[in-house]
Amino acid sequence: MDDTTIEPFVRNAWYVACWPDELDNGILARTILKEPLVLFRDPDGKASALEDRCCHRAAPLHYGKLVETGIQCGYHGLVFDGSGKCVDIPGQQNIPPMAGVRSYPVVERNRIIWIWMGDPALADESKIVPYPWHDDTAKWPYCKEVMHIKCNYMLMIDNLMDLTHLAYVHTKTIGGNPSAHVNAKMDIERTEHGARYIRWMDETTPPPTYVKGAGFKGKVDRWQEFEYVVPSTVVQWSGALDVGKGAHENREQEGFHLRILHAITPVTETTCIYFWSAANGYRQDDPKATVELYGEINPTFIEDVGIIEGQQARLDSDPNRALLGIRADNALSQARRALRAELERESGITAQAAE
Amino acid sequence: MDDTTIEPFVRNAWYVACWPDELDNGILARTILKEPLVLFRDPDGKASALEDRCCHRAAPLHYGKLVETGIQCGYHGLVFDGSGKCVDIPGQQNIPPMAGVRSYPVVERNRIIWIWMGDPALADESKIVPYPWHDDTAKWPYCKEVMHIKCNYMLMIDNLMDLTHLAYVHTKTIGGNPSAHVNAKMDIERTEHGARYIRWMDETTPPPTYVKGAGFKGKVDRWQEFEYVVPSTVVQWSGALDVGKGAHENREQEGFHLRILHAITPVTETTCIYFWSAANGYRQDDPKATVELYGEINPTFIEDVGIIEGQQARLDSDPNRALLGIRADNALSQARRALRAELERESGITAQAAE
Amino acid sequence: MDDTTIEPFVRNAWYVACWPDELDNGILARTILKEPLVLFRDPDGKASALEDRCCHRAAPLHYGKLVETGIQCGYHGLVFDGSGKCVDIPGQQNIPPMAGVRSYPVVERNRIIWIWMGDPALADESKIVPYPWHDDTAKWPYCKEVMHIKCNYMLMIDNLMDLTHLAYVHTKTIGGNPSAHVNAKMDIERTEHGARYIRWMDETTPPPTYVKGAGFKGKVDRWQEFEYVVPSTVVQWSGALDVGKGAHENREQEGFHLRILHAITPVTETTCIYFWSAANGYRQDDPKATVELYGEINPTFIEDVGIIEGQQARLDSDPNRALLGIRADNALSQARRALRAELERESGITAQAAE
Repeated sequence: MDDTTIEPFVRNAWYVACWPDELDNGILARTILKEPLVLFRDPDGKASALEDRCCHRAAPLHYGKLVETGIQCGYHGLVFDGSGKCVDIPGQQNIPPMAGVRSYPVVERNRIIWIWMGDPALADESKIVPYPWHDDTAKWPYCKEVMHIKCNYMLMIDNLMDLTHLAYVHTKTIGGNPSAHVNAKMDIERTEHGARYIRWMDETTPPPTYVKGAGFKGKVDRWQEFEYVVPSTVVQWSGALDVGKGAHENREQEGFHLRILHAITPVTETTCIYFWSAANGYRQDDPKATVELYGEINPTFIEDVGIIEGQQARLDSDPNRALLGIRADNALSQARRALRAELERESGITAQAAE
Repeated sequence: MDDTTIEPFVRNAWYVACWPDELDNGILARTILKEPLVLFRDPDGKASALEDRCCHRAAPLHYGKLVETGIQCGYHGLVFDGSGKCVDIPGQQNIPPMAGVRSYPVVERNRIIWIWMGDPALADESKIVPYPWHDDTAKWPYCKEVMHIKCNYMLMIDNLMDLTHLAYVHTKTIGGNPSAHVNAKMDIERTEHGARYIRWMDETTPPPTYVKGAGFKGKVDRWQEFEYVVPSTVVQWSGALDVGKGAHENREQEGFHLRILHAITPVTETTCIYFWSAANGYRQDDPKATVELYGEINPTFIEDVGIIEGQQARLDSDPNRALLGIRADNALSQARRALRAELERESGITAQAAE
Repeated sequence: MDDTTIEPFVRNAWYVACWPDELDNGILARTILKEPLVLFRDPDGKASALEDRCCHRAAPLHYGKLVETGIQCGYHGLVFDGSGKCVDIPGQQNIPPMAGVRSYPVVERNRIIWIWMGDPALADESKIVPYPWHDDTAKWPYCKEVMHIKCNYMLMIDNLMDLTHLAYVHTKTIGGNPSAHVNAKMDIERTEHGARYIRWMDETTPPPTYVKGAGFKGKVDRWQEFEYVVPSTVVQWSGALDVGKGAHENREQEGFHLRILHAITPVTETTCIYFWSAANGYRQDDPKATVELYGEINPTFIEDVGIIEGQQARLDSDPNRALLGIRADNALSQARRALRAELERESGITAQAAE
């Protein structure tokens, strides 16, 4: 077992399926954990996810259209409601009880549409990663994106859990000085559901964006906190306070604050969708600030995609070859261990359910 | 065995290889039943089909050119006549008896070029589906097309054998009212070599094309007849007569008549070529009528291609999963049974030949 | 075993990796014998080749950049020198002894960069095909190219070892009269490391290029000499002298002389890179002559690519089917035998090394 091993999927977990506005135009086709899905709002507005395959002749349902009672197959007109039940078969009165398609538990919370890919009986909403900042757009206006990437989703998690790459991948954007990243003080810990690290750069000159954002006059204490929640979410909080404000004890004070949600949803073993949102917690009254934030973050993440897709290509061609661990891998190794623990827990659940 | 099972190919059968004018520019490369072929007219003008692979160094013959004695390989100049016999090897007088490439029986009839893909000794021209209307272009001027589709050929046959899809797939073109299609009276029967159905819409208002075509003043009796001939042809006759003319007893009277030949030639298990011709039997003296007919039919068939290719993609990813039969599948099920009967007959022949 | 069999690669051999100027812009990524490589000049200017995969997290090194001490990985900054040794790991002082990537012996000679793909201990520079004409650009100004081709490399060698194809493939360029090629006198011989043939066309009218190049007034004795050196180089010398000068005894006299290096480096079993250079040994003082030479040769070789890629496609679909040998295959059969002898020798070496 190695830190680039392609792990099995965690099935009993909530994944980000889409942003709510991706359903604004009706039907959305998306593959998650290798399962083709069709997403739409049912007549009551509830986000729903069905397998994207009609039970009649296997036509993809996303070629169909929304009707009063659900989604209508675009081939022969069968209709399915949000629960997957077939509610109309043209040309016959009798709808056999087994007529229907698989549905998936879906929860819309914090302006995120989550989907449960495992056993519906185990879908526990309390396991959804809370992200309350999305609900307070006055204080946390945000921008967001959906990126389709040709890599195993854990390579994106690895990327977020090792910031030493900033100086090499992001030389044209946020890179900065290599030694600043490598020598930053790191606190790494396992959490109940993942791993967390915080990097502190104390008494440093704030970068221009920070000054512009928070009006700093002198030096600041800066931090970057990343928390991985198994299997596929990373919650980031970066910020800075004036030196002397006691940032280490209490970061919840006025200053520079940036919160980024990273959710990496597996499509196949070697492809994924990267959902990110970035919340501007410093110039909330200036709409331009959020636009500028998007303009800074999006090109940076595109830089990551290039190298990580290359990494995946190399891993594909020789997946079992050993790699060299280095000191900087510490946090990503903790994340990988947390994932493996969850996989073991899940295989225990599955074994139990099969008894 | 299911109605979407990918069946083996019927080998001992005539398939449409191409339209005659596809040979007007010389050499045509085409794959049928997974066999790469080169088609051309021999020096006498007879359409010929050879395997598209030189016996010398395996170069595709379709890179070559037509010479007086046949087709000349474009690599080292070997020449093959229409029977596949090698008639020239540059640099040597002696042509070994085994020098040659496989040839296929080809028959040009009714302005269609048919090919026999099985044992040449069994090629029986009486089994070619007759299509005499092509020969009477004064009475039946026609338009035609060649479409390359990413689906098993039987999915196209299914499509033609179940017209309930009209209301869902063809909403922008010929769709019309769903219940009209679903409730149309259907007579379905097995025939000696396939299956046939006729749908009657009696005493109905004719659609504008029909009125324009045949000058109807009042209501009509309409029909749509589709006859599937194993393995891959469907002959369609749609039309209408004034109410009171006794259409059910004798359709061969002046009125609106449209004949469509559908021939679906397998390329691989999941790709095919759709040859269709549509003959205008109502405004034969107006060349614009046939052009308009093409303009109506071609976009309609393109609508089918979209959803059927999607259906194939879903079947590919889980080919053995059971489907739900519905009432509207009746005619296509008859067609599938006719195909399977032929496959059983063929495996009997093959077994016999091997004894 | 057939003359189109896809043979295993000869590993213990020198292959052309690139032209020197391909390294002018820094880093070059190239796959040879299915191994992804990164090529660059080390700080001393020595051409180096490493596997294109960082030992840390498998990122392709060609995404990186050249630094003072070698090549720096573009993901987390590890640095490797030209020997593959890791010389820097950001964030840690200690570099473990096994940190490094595989390097390949590289020799730059005669303006060609050669790489040894086998056991480095066996890399014997005396086995490099000498090509001294590249070093005398006053007497032999040359043009060159790199072509990426979808065929097994031996299909390109076959092509060069059987010139009867000229009349069929190159009808628009250098083709000429089929019988002239087929009937040309051929002397074929096995050599220590390959096979060689020379074709003589005595007392013939020189083609226009020859007349323009060497000022011939009357008939000439022409030759085309091709020498295959195992596994993947063909050295060509074509030319003509005035009749009476005794060309058969001594070709090293003033006249028309053209030397072409053909080096075909395998990428995978079914793809290769074709490096060629063509040296103008007739109008050395006129720079336009070399430009014109490129303009004649490049389109000709592109004609070969088309048909050979088609040939590969046919071989792929039925690799074990027997082919028909003809008289014209003689020289290419000698070349194939030489290759097989080398493969047997190599498997002997390998067996010995494993004892």
